[in-house]
Amino acid sequence: MDAAGSYLERMRANAPLVQNITNQVAMNMMANVQIAAGASPAMAQALEEVVEFTAHADALTVNIGTADSVQAESMRQAAQAMNHHARPWVFDPVGVGATRFRNDLCRDLMALCPTVLRGNASEILTLAGERQGARGVDAVDSVAVAEGAARQLARQTNRIVVASGAVDYVTDGTRAFRIANGDPMMTKVTVMGCSLNGVIAAFLVRQPELEATAAALAYYGLAGERAARVSAGPGSFQPAFLDALFTLSPDEVTRGARIEAA
Amino acid sequence: MDAAGSYLERMRANAPLVQNITNQVAMNMMANVQIAAGASPAMAQALEEVVEFTAHADALTVNIGTADSVQAESMRQAAQAMNHHARPWVFDPVGVGATRFRNDLCRDLMALCPTVLRGNASEILTLAGERQGARGVDAVDSVAVAEGAARQLARQTNRIVVASGAVDYVTDGTRAFRIANGDPMMTKVTVMGCSLNGVIAAFLVRQPELEATAAALAYYGLAGERAARVSAGPGSFQPAFLDALFTLSPDEVTRGARIEAA
Amino acid sequence: MDAAGSYLERMRANAPLVQNITNQVAMNMMANVQIAAGASPAMAQALEEVVEFTAHADALTVNIGTADSVQAESMRQAAQAMNHHARPWVFDPVGVGATRFRNDLCRDLMALCPTVLRGNASEILTLAGERQGARGVDAVDSVAVAEGAARQLARQTNRIVVASGAVDYVTDGTRAFRIANGDPMMTKVTVMGCSLNGVIAAFLVRQPELEATAAALAYYGLAGERAARVSAGPGSFQPAFLDALFTLSPDEVTRGARIEAA
Repeated sequence: MDAAGSYLERMRANAPLVQNITNQVAMNMMANVQIAAGASPAMAQALEEVVEFTAHADALTVNIGTADSVQAESMRQAAQAMNHHARPWVFDPVGVGATRFRNDLCRDLMALCPTVLRGNASEILTLAGERQGARGVDAVDSVAVAEGAARQLARQTNRIVVASGAVDYVTDGTRAFRIANGDPMMTKVTVMGCSLNGVIAAFLVRQPELEATAAALAYYGLAGERAARVSAGPGSFQPAFLDALFTLSPDEVTRGARIEAA
Repeated sequence: MDAAGSYLERMRANAPLVQNITNQVAMNMMANVQIAAGASPAMAQALEEVVEFTAHADALTVNIGTADSVQAESMRQAAQAMNHHARPWVFDPVGVGATRFRNDLCRDLMALCPTVLRGNASEILTLAGERQGARGVDAVDSVAVAEGAARQLARQTNRIVVASGAVDYVTDGTRAFRIANGDPMMTKVTVMGCSLNGVIAAFLVRQPELEATAAALAYYGLAGERAARVSAGPGSFQPAFLDALFTLSPDEVTRGARIEAA
Repeated sequence: MDAAGSYLERMRANAPLVQNITNQVAMNMMANVQIAAGASPAMAQALEEVVEFTAHADALTVNIGTADSVQAESMRQAAQAMNHHARPWVFDPVGVGATRFRNDLCRDLMALCPTVLRGNASEILTLAGERQGARGVDAVDSVAVAEGAARQLARQTNRIVVASGAVDYVTDGTRAFRIANGDPMMTKVTVMGCSLNGVIAAFLVRQPELEATAAALAYYGLAGERAARVSAGPGSFQPAFLDALFTLSPDEVTRGARIEAA
């Protein structure tokens, strides 16, 4: 792949408009993360306008964290619209396995072939049928355990699958990368995974999918490393993380990225 | 007009209760901004209680950022109630032009004659019929281009119109002010415009509308300037901005305000 | 009671999953507060899954700040499910007295016997029938005035009642504690009360209710004291508060707690 920072550079030049249909916990942080990175977020999701709004969107994220039946229908219609426009969308199956409603919605959205599926190890294992149920929204499995499931899911769907964790794994079913950037403090702040979806979506616009996703993961993890160095806990980490997303240069990303072929 | 700081001083003495029907991205930040400034926010907006709640409210803000049909009805009923109580309300037509649903809702709310209409230049131009469509929620036009449209809208509605940007413009259709306070970092944090609505609404309570709005814009911009001087990016800007809203004294606002008749 | 810090220590060892049905303003901050304290938050609340999700939850919080009829039904069903599981839940009657809708919903939820009822003094007085109406969501009464009402409510319901304020009061109707930790800056940040509910809920899991609640109040107030010492206003207070929740040790809580039998 190209130097990791070059994907950030092109993303910032694109300044893509990313539409987000996400959970109510994540809305503010997701928007701030995307602005800090260099993208332009929009949170239009009402069924009354969601499909019409996709005409303006370069990419879409879908996150089922606090979905109900009405929002679920917005998700399905917006995902279909993005497929129709041939534009990328990222799907985050938060807490799949926890309830029948979540499982049914995830099945519907997987059938719409997201460009990138991103979950924690437990969610990827659950979607691959190798695990039942979930304790909540936090992973109880390590990414290493989920690599096989991620590869299998990617092969089945012919799309990109990311298992996020201490070391991220991303694969298109044939090729794969491991990304070792990040810091444990990232698990002590809510919606850090949700917010990552928006960064991946922004990187996907007019860039090769697998490599752009790997670069987005490295950039995001590097911002976490930089923030952890200057923070005294999860409270001060959060503003420092946004500052780091904003100030990291393409060269710094290239030098700091720890991406290796898997 | 009086010294700019005197409007802040009277607002803090009033400590108005501001009811906000706003988008899901802005809720937390809007509430914190209003508390830091010296007002008391309330986010009651369910159709089941929204009109009854207006009895407690000194002012109201309405923001269509993530509206659906149900919230739209809350907006219409609450705006009518405020008109009935003869209390001020501020309307923010986020992303007007982006979808038919937004356009229809904006038409309904404009017909209810908001005390203050506040938008970015693109939104003001769209409402004035001088521009079609929108890319999303961010302005692509400069305020200077929108001044004529703002003045025309203010004359038609007999109310106050604000076009926000690097230099803000506020007019009642006859008189006008330009406010040159602010910092570019304010565009790198989400819902900074939405949050401004709540500050304007608080200033409007029992004060002359045009001057109170100009003073609110200067105060808000000054807080942005102060925050930018001590922050390292959009993450650290946000807490510094709330601190500045909280600590700025009326005298400091009077000395720092850059308001001129236009 | 045991040393105050021992309740924190056991809570962190339990790492309970706390389900929250809360207002839209509080969602993000509540989640971050619970993670920083050592619990695991989940915001599942859609009627389509809320009861099924309670199977995973060690405790529940219910907050009516921005409730509508649909969310109200989620609250009733989830509270009943927690009663069925014999697991604790905390109820926050935000703004009771402000509207008929709020009053009716509070009556329903009180009838379901929350493990802990937590409100500000005005809310406790209103629920006890000693006060009519409310100005909004902020207390206009002092806790000292509400102690009798709290004790009476606790006796009637046979549960724990907390009146929060400069000095908190917690009672089971027979015994009571006053907790003098905290800082005035805590009233200048939104959803600090809502977020406290999640900490109380986490402490309640497998611990004696009255003592665990008193310890949670002391811990939360201590974090506020520590944050106030290093912050320059309500903006910098918020990250410092999360850092303090994260870094406070059980020993520090034991040494700093100002809990006395009342």
